[in-house]
Amino acid sequence: MKTSVFIGEMDWKTYADRVSDGGAPVLLPVGALEQHGHHMSMNVDVLLPVAVCERVAKRIGALVAPALQYGYKSQQKSGGGNHFPGTTSLDGATVTSTVRDIIRELARHGVRRLGVMNGHFENTMFLVEGIDLGLRDLRYAGIDDFRVTVLSYWDFINDPTVIGELYPEGFLGWDIEHGGVFETSLMLALYPELVDMDRVKDHAPATFPPYDSFPVIPERTPAPGTLSSAKAASVEKGRLILDVCVAGITDALRHEFGLVEPTPELERPAVTA
Amino acid sequence: MKTSVFIGEMDWKTYADRVSDGGAPVLLPVGALEQHGHHMSMNVDVLLPVAVCERVAKRIGALVAPALQYGYKSQQKSGGGNHFPGTTSLDGATVTSTVRDIIRELARHGVRRLGVMNGHFENTMFLVEGIDLGLRDLRYAGIDDFRVTVLSYWDFINDPTVIGELYPEGFLGWDIEHGGVFETSLMLALYPELVDMDRVKDHAPATFPPYDSFPVIPERTPAPGTLSSAKAASVEKGRLILDVCVAGITDALRHEFGLVEPTPELERPAVTA
Amino acid sequence: MKTSVFIGEMDWKTYADRVSDGGAPVLLPVGALEQHGHHMSMNVDVLLPVAVCERVAKRIGALVAPALQYGYKSQQKSGGGNHFPGTTSLDGATVTSTVRDIIRELARHGVRRLGVMNGHFENTMFLVEGIDLGLRDLRYAGIDDFRVTVLSYWDFINDPTVIGELYPEGFLGWDIEHGGVFETSLMLALYPELVDMDRVKDHAPATFPPYDSFPVIPERTPAPGTLSSAKAASVEKGRLILDVCVAGITDALRHEFGLVEPTPELERPAVTA
Amino acid sequence: MKTSVFIGEMDWKTYADRVSDGGAPVLLPVGALEQHGHHMSMNVDVLLPVAVCERVAKRIGALVAPALQYGYKSQQKSGGGNHFPGTTSLDGATVTSTVRDIIRELARHGVRRLGVMNGHFENTMFLVEGIDLGLRDLRYAGIDDFRVTVLSYWDFINDPTVIGELYPEGFLGWDIEHGGVFETSLMLALYPELVDMDRVKDHAPATFPPYDSFPVIPERTPAPGTLSSAKAASVEKGRLILDVCVAGITDALRHEFGLVEPTPELERPAVTA
Amino acid sequence: MKTSVFIGEMDWKTYADRVSDGGAPVLLPVGALEQHGHHMSMNVDVLLPVAVCERVAKRIGALVAPALQYGYKSQQKSGGGNHFPGTTSLDGATVTSTVRDIIRELARHGVRRLGVMNGHFENTMFLVEGIDLGLRDLRYAGIDDFRVTVLSYWDFINDPTVIGELYPEGFLGWDIEHGGVFETSLMLALYPELVDMDRVKDHAPATFPPYDSFPVIPERTPAPGTLSSAKAASVEKGRLILDVCVAGITDALRHEFGLVEPTPELERPAVTA
Amino acid sequence: MKTSVFIGEMDWKTYADRVSDGGAPVLLPVGALEQHGHHMSMNVDVLLPVAVCERVAKRIGALVAPALQYGYKSQQKSGGGNHFPGTTSLDGATVTSTVRDIIRELARHGVRRLGVMNGHFENTMFLVEGIDLGLRDLRYAGIDDFRVTVLSYWDFINDPTVIGELYPEGFLGWDIEHGGVFETSLMLALYPELVDMDRVKDHAPATFPPYDSFPVIPERTPAPGTLSSAKAASVEKGRLILDVCVAGITDALRHEFGLVEPTPELERPAVTA
Repeated sequence: MKTSVFIGEMDWKTYADRVSDGGAPVLLPVGALEQHGHHMSMNVDVLLPVAVCERVAKRIGALVAPALQYGYKSQQKSGGGNHFPGTTSLDGATVTSTVRDIIRELARHGVRRLGVMNGHFENTMFLVEGIDLGLRDLRYAGIDDFRVTVLSYWDFINDPTVIGELYPEGFLGWDIEHGGVFETSLMLALYPELVDMDRVKDHAPATFPPYDSFPVIPERTPAPGTLSSAKAASVEKGRLILDVCVAGITDALRHEFGLVEPTPELERPAVTA
Repeated sequence: MKTSVFIGEMDWKTYADRVSDGGAPVLLPVGALEQHGHHMSMNVDVLLPVAVCERVAKRIGALVAPALQYGYKSQQKSGGGNHFPGTTSLDGATVTSTVRDIIRELARHGVRRLGVMNGHFENTMFLVEGIDLGLRDLRYAGIDDFRVTVLSYWDFINDPTVIGELYPEGFLGWDIEHGGVFETSLMLALYPELVDMDRVKDHAPATFPPYDSFPVIPERTPAPGTLSSAKAASVEKGRLILDVCVAGITDALRHEFGLVEPTPELERPAVTA
Repeated sequence: MKTSVFIGEMDWKTYADRVSDGGAPVLLPVGALEQHGHHMSMNVDVLLPVAVCERVAKRIGALVAPALQYGYKSQQKSGGGNHFPGTTSLDGATVTSTVRDIIRELARHGVRRLGVMNGHFENTMFLVEGIDLGLRDLRYAGIDDFRVTVLSYWDFINDPTVIGELYPEGFLGWDIEHGGVFETSLMLALYPELVDMDRVKDHAPATFPPYDSFPVIPERTPAPGTLSSAKAASVEKGRLILDVCVAGITDALRHEFGLVEPTPELERPAVTA
Repeated sequence: MKTSVFIGEMDWKTYADRVSDGGAPVLLPVGALEQHGHHMSMNVDVLLPVAVCERVAKRIGALVAPALQYGYKSQQKSGGGNHFPGTTSLDGATVTSTVRDIIRELARHGVRRLGVMNGHFENTMFLVEGIDLGLRDLRYAGIDDFRVTVLSYWDFINDPTVIGELYPEGFLGWDIEHGGVFETSLMLALYPELVDMDRVKDHAPATFPPYDSFPVIPERTPAPGTLSSAKAASVEKGRLILDVCVAGITDALRHEFGLVEPTPELERPAVTA
Repeated sequence: MKTSVFIGEMDWKTYADRVSDGGAPVLLPVGALEQHGHHMSMNVDVLLPVAVCERVAKRIGALVAPALQYGYKSQQKSGGGNHFPGTTSLDGATVTSTVRDIIRELARHGVRRLGVMNGHFENTMFLVEGIDLGLRDLRYAGIDDFRVTVLSYWDFINDPTVIGELYPEGFLGWDIEHGGVFETSLMLALYPELVDMDRVKDHAPATFPPYDSFPVIPERTPAPGTLSSAKAASVEKGRLILDVCVAGITDALRHEFGLVEPTPELERPAVTA
Repeated sequence: MKTSVFIGEMDWKTYADRVSDGGAPVLLPVGALEQHGHHMSMNVDVLLPVAVCERVAKRIGALVAPALQYGYKSQQKSGGGNHFPGTTSLDGATVTSTVRDIIRELARHGVRRLGVMNGHFENTMFLVEGIDLGLRDLRYAGIDDFRVTVLSYWDFINDPTVIGELYPEGFLGWDIEHGGVFETSLMLALYPELVDMDRVKDHAPATFPPYDSFPVIPERTPAPGTLSSAKAASVEKGRLILDVCVAGITDALRHEFGLVEPTPELERPAVTA
């Protein structure tokens, strides 16, 4: 039976040995099934946080829980809107309950440190609520040493040099990166078979009014569903992003989880291998 | 970009073309993260229905939605109980809401025929409730032609000859198959790297009183977590099960979904390839 | 004021004296309002578990709480389906909440042992969830010695001799017993005024495909609503079933509730009196 | 099979014939399991509205659904408070959901006129909410001719002569009638075996401050749990109350349900028989 | 920065100093947005309990939380019904959750005594449920010394002399006071700019049958929406009501909250100033 | 009776005349009770959107609904965190339900255009969910022309010249404006009595790691609760902000609501009067 950082690929005894008494931290990738333009698959928001989690987990001795495959409703200014076919979203309460339930279960196993790795912007506040309610449940049960760190991997791209390399013509903000250079480059580096650069629609970055309209006005989203063009995406950019995110998140979680001792033998494999 | 029956691996335009106006049916695999003994990974209930769905989808021209990774609480007499580390379950309302939400979204895309493929016995009634509430929502929205078929793949193993081949010493019922010959054989045929036959604990089939106790009395479950021994599992049995299930479900869904015309070119690849 | 095992027929002081400090166990019958064919009343699933509870309670010194009169939605393969007029069902969450609330209240009274006696198959998982959530609430409140046993009385008919007597032409499974020989015989023995054997529709046992369809396809259920014919029902069979069930459940609950001492004077009255 | 106004005692065909196309109205008694002093059983709030419903149903050609056995939490100033052992109450949302679900089901059967007969004051607003939400559901489903009448049978005792007969020394308000002359007299008339007048505790009528305190201050409730003394209760008073209530409610529902034609042969049996 | 009894007008440090360790009690006014006839604004049920709270808070050293602006659905016999334009109501569960959440938060701040001042009759039971659930949450969290007093200010008008002054022609009950002399007089005394006595519709007191109908039958409510005429309202009556309510509630809360020491310098300003 | 744009200050007839048949749009201010440092009151997030709504409503002929006084839990990186005394927050589901319920009610009144004016960043996604669910309810009821615009007033400060005037030393982002120059200046312009500039704590702008930790680590928030210093706040800046926001939102809503005709006589009063 192969060795894996994925909890789903472990037998329960091996898992139990790792997490009992607050041993190994657990990482929970949270994604969505959401259109990402004509040129890319709809599982981007799942695959990317899973890829980051896998690499970080190997470095810090963490385990990776099965990813949440469905997320909160796509918003027009960050994901194009929830009116596209294919985008398949949950009510906020469902996202919240899922996270709350998982936290209670992990705590029962002995886990005490959880990293929630978000790959879909719109999930954020419903994850936060699920964590708040999960921790409330744990307090009721007498558990008050369970800690959660919530991360969106893109928040670790904040070095101006890196941003300059990724966006030589200027960075316009994460909001309109939906289906753009950032996500497409990562997919090219990790899952090139799920990208077809020939189908990229080159269009000007989306611009939106400083408010939101419901029901959504579909014409405000560029027709392909992307909010900026992925034309400038490349494998190299994807590798750079991945390296920077994995390194930054590794450091962050070591600090948050009090993992002062590195585990050098686990870190040696190249991130982008 | 590769061709795939998995919705997550499709771009939205391709998906939209397939499902609009009630075109392609969709299959939703539903699993669990649950201990399956010392010898097998905990994602068995996800991997197996996904494998069945993939093969059936290719035969009937259906698409496969991302699998639900977490399920309802393991029950002692069918899954060993929810007290094991690793088993990570949702409250019933969370399972129900997830299915309800997905049905509303698929209907919005144009889907009108859904197959829910269950891989975890305990999910059943919460799926049924999610379907009932989802169809109620659709009726409120004026949609009354959305049809759902709920299947547990093991229910298609009902030919006494097949059962005789699988259990030459006698079949004791699906209940105690948790982590036993049936699931282990399928995993050996499909994901041998997630099974370690050397770690199988050979024990007598579990016996339980004709009632259930809460909180669970752990001693009633065999210590490894399996309810019967997987010693007699084999790749060949796994292939037989898969062939029979896929054939039976293919026929069933063709009938349910009114798909009278086979699609021969799609069916040619061997099931167990 | 008459002596009674029914909590509803007791005054609060008498009840309080019986249950304080985890004294008497409580039995909760759970039924449904569901069609049971042309020949029988719709309260079968309430009356039968109440009758069993009353007899068991007298033997083990337990008390019987008011029965839940409405249950979860009838499923086609076990109850004919929820499309029949008369069948009046609750959403799953309502069943679950009811049980959860009652558990919290019984615990407040001092009760520590509860038997949930189910008379309607479809209730099962929603009862289980209500129990799980109720026990979670109790743990939050610092109560961890409340124990629940869930029983379906038919599960105590498992002696081949008994089954041979009931079904001389062969037993086809509990699933299709809805409105058939089993329930009708019990009603004949207990409430003959609610049965009209002249109205029994003799039909072949229902057969169903190995999956479920929603919305239900009404034609799959035999028109009278029963899943097998009650023609062979009799008072004698009803008495046999009742004797066997009451004896088996009495033993089971004595064991589960740690009631080693029988109470002979209470047991003497014949079960079927 | 006996003829009955109770839906539970009818077979589904007979029921369906009665209610289809908005035929017979349905009455739903709603009670509670609540302490009613040392001298009386705890099912008073169920038995009394059932008795009223049965008599009214015979007069107006209505049917009686199974009573709700558990109600909302007893309040100190109307029921003594929810701290007594025996009093077994539901959360408000559970009461509300139950009524909402039943309304949806009755409407599916063809019922269009429902009388909700409340026997437990504290239920009132949660019934109202369940009705409002149930009617909202029906509107979503395109049903807008379902009508509900909510009644508390004591509200039909408003003739000063009657009140004078019942309370020759002066009437102090329904609030403190909990377990007092009113309910006890009705029980004596209907279920004398569930009353023990020797155990009545004679005490001054309860007095409360003009506000409510939570958690309840138990000392404010008279120790026996009754809010006024039942010493003056009598069978005769019970018969008078029943006659007046049944007559008043019969008239009210005939008017509300548009039942202009009396059904004389059904009315002949004396109310209190 | 001005001194205020309103929490919203305080900075957090000042507030924290006041409430830590169960210091100052908090009053929570709860209202509604509800029609009150042609002659008066729709915020009556908010403004009046706020006014009472402010005056009481100054006398007992309490603080006043922001008022709930929306309440439970107007009932026909107490508020005219929820069918009027303008009346803007919440589902019961929303009212309940709001109060429950606020209780948890106040307890976190250190508050241990809460007065809930209701200005809208229909809120009552949903407030009670919110309090019950909030106190349950606190018990789970180990807090069992949080006390809540629920008051409706009109319940403090019970002196026959006062009632005689207010209703020289006889008092017909609080039910039909909706938009009548009581509320209008208070508004004249406190917010004359929100009353237009010229627009008062003089009509006979509303009379209703002894039951409730759903959907509401609009004709049963007097057309202006008031249940009795406000013609006899006056500033003087408003001042009298306010004085009596404030005095009575001050005494009640001092007693409930164990505030034996008056704070004379705070009490000197006239109530109606 | 004074003329007002506030619905609470209108009588129902006047309101009904304004909104029937989709007449006047309605604005709903949504705030929070949240600490804003030592120098400012805790109702800032309510007062500011109300002030903006009032001014915009006068310009576009809209009405202003009562503000929601409590909001979602303060987050550390935008509001300091929910651990401060005074900050009094609701669960996400409560915020969502409140908005959903209000939308259903406004639609019943005839309103068809709603502006939700948010004054508390953390509310955003729960408002969005409430709007989505409210619009879903309306679709079920056959109403599909109800439109909602969600605005956060600070999003209308995007002119670099204005930002330069407000932040001559550089703008560091809205995130850390909690209790800083922006909100304090607005309060100085509108409610100077609720600000005490002498109590402003001058501190460096808060810096946070690129992730969130739960339970919150209090030390990461500057001790006063503000995320940047309000020292540079001024009445003039407040007036500028208000003018710019009101002008921008007026234009935006005119466009969104299709209000092409200005109403000059209503616009003449100065914004900051």
